[in-house]
Amino acid sequence: MGKVIVVGIGPGNYENMTIRADRALQSCDVIIGYSVYVDLVQEQYPGKEYYTTPMTQEAKRCQMALDFAEQGKTAAVVCSGDSGIYGMAALIYELRGECAVPEIEVIPGLTAACSGAAVLGAPLTHDFAVISLSDRLTSWETIEKRLESAAEADLSIVLYNPASHSRPDHLRRACDILLRHLPEDRLCGVVRNIGRDGESKSLMNLRELRTASVDMFCTVFIGNAMTKKILQNMVTPRGYRNV
Amino acid sequence: MGKVIVVGIGPGNYENMTIRADRALQSCDVIIGYSVYVDLVQEQYPGKEYYTTPMTQEAKRCQMALDFAEQGKTAAVVCSGDSGIYGMAALIYELRGECAVPEIEVIPGLTAACSGAAVLGAPLTHDFAVISLSDRLTSWETIEKRLESAAEADLSIVLYNPASHSRPDHLRRACDILLRHLPEDRLCGVVRNIGRDGESKSLMNLRELRTASVDMFCTVFIGNAMTKKILQNMVTPRGYRNV
Repeated sequence: MGKVIVVGIGPGNYENMTIRADRALQSCDVIIGYSVYVDLVQEQYPGKEYYTTPMTQEAKRCQMALDFAEQGKTAAVVCSGDSGIYGMAALIYELRGECAVPEIEVIPGLTAACSGAAVLGAPLTHDFAVISLSDRLTSWETIEKRLESAAEADLSIVLYNPASHSRPDHLRRACDILLRHLPEDRLCGVVRNIGRDGESKSLMNLRELRTASVDMFCTVFIGNAMTKKILQNMVTPRGYRNV
Repeated sequence: MGKVIVVGIGPGNYENMTIRADRALQSCDVIIGYSVYVDLVQEQYPGKEYYTTPMTQEAKRCQMALDFAEQGKTAAVVCSGDSGIYGMAALIYELRGECAVPEIEVIPGLTAACSGAAVLGAPLTHDFAVISLSDRLTSWETIEKRLESAAEADLSIVLYNPASHSRPDHLRRACDILLRHLPEDRLCGVVRNIGRDGESKSLMNLRELRTASVDMFCTVFIGNAMTKKILQNMVTPRGYRNV
């Protein structure tokens, strides 16, 4: 019997992968993933069988991995960022069900909250919430409630999937909700293409974020009440300085 | 002029470090950190100058790194988990202030939300909040408000610093707050010593979590309404299966 490994490859560049993820991809037989993520690793790991499926065929992709493992192979499912956070690990456990084989190993990776924050400076020093603006699998009412709650509790907020072709106005709608609770001048940051060619960052306030140009390659950070700009960096203190 | 690198070393084992963090520690001159974290890396990187400071001397530790950088050295400040999330990156930016030198580079690492989740299965597939129960630098009222808000919004919750010698009852108090909004049978998980000798995990419900034995080496996960136990794993679906 083979096994399925679910590998978080981090933001996309080799250096931001963990040593464990690198070793796992070196030693596996088959690598399966969404085509964009497979493109990120294919050059680094030659001699593997590669399989890609389009964006909306997550279950098919994970079932393929389980089938390869049943055939005795070590099948890696690659996820951008972490393997769990908005990743495929849960789906693979669900599809395997109450059977203990094939073995599943979950290998964590740097999620965009960590890798994007490091590009901006240190916006997540303290408590924070991670919320996806994609309503493909979640109702907009649920997303709205989570944004409200996070703002009320002065959590820093990281927004994943802030926009796509089919939902170009989600970030504006999210900002309108946040502006019910947060001041217009709340410091925000946008990071695009973290760890990839053309990586960029920009700082702005929440009013400006409302009309900012974002796409599916962006991660958005909204500061808490203490967050401040130091030179071109977004920095959330935690109070160590006053100890 | 040297530089300061703030390095997230992940949970503590070499394999869960990123390739970038490993290369940075190989090439730096000085490694500074809380003694427990320095112990984790000292063997792997011989021939460096090492400096440790106790738990409560964060500002002193970061100022040392800036001073070494002024003297032309590359000084690494090591943080367990990520370099930003409850880490030292913000403090270093604060201490440097409005001066652009010495250069600061923030190298992200696996935070316990990612590395601990992978041990439990996949509890963080969807939106979540990260909240520390330490009231050393934050008022308990703020922590309480954040717990309430996260529970009301059906966010999965990760609790950092669930207990220490000086605050043995914080987890019980946090559970009492959560139980105002969440059912007693909500699935929870505790991971101890992630990626280190003696790593362990246990699943329980929220009522049982209230009296669970935890210490400062534990990270606690509280599921959302969809979270379920599959074999011995904590799994939060996101709905891919129904697409």
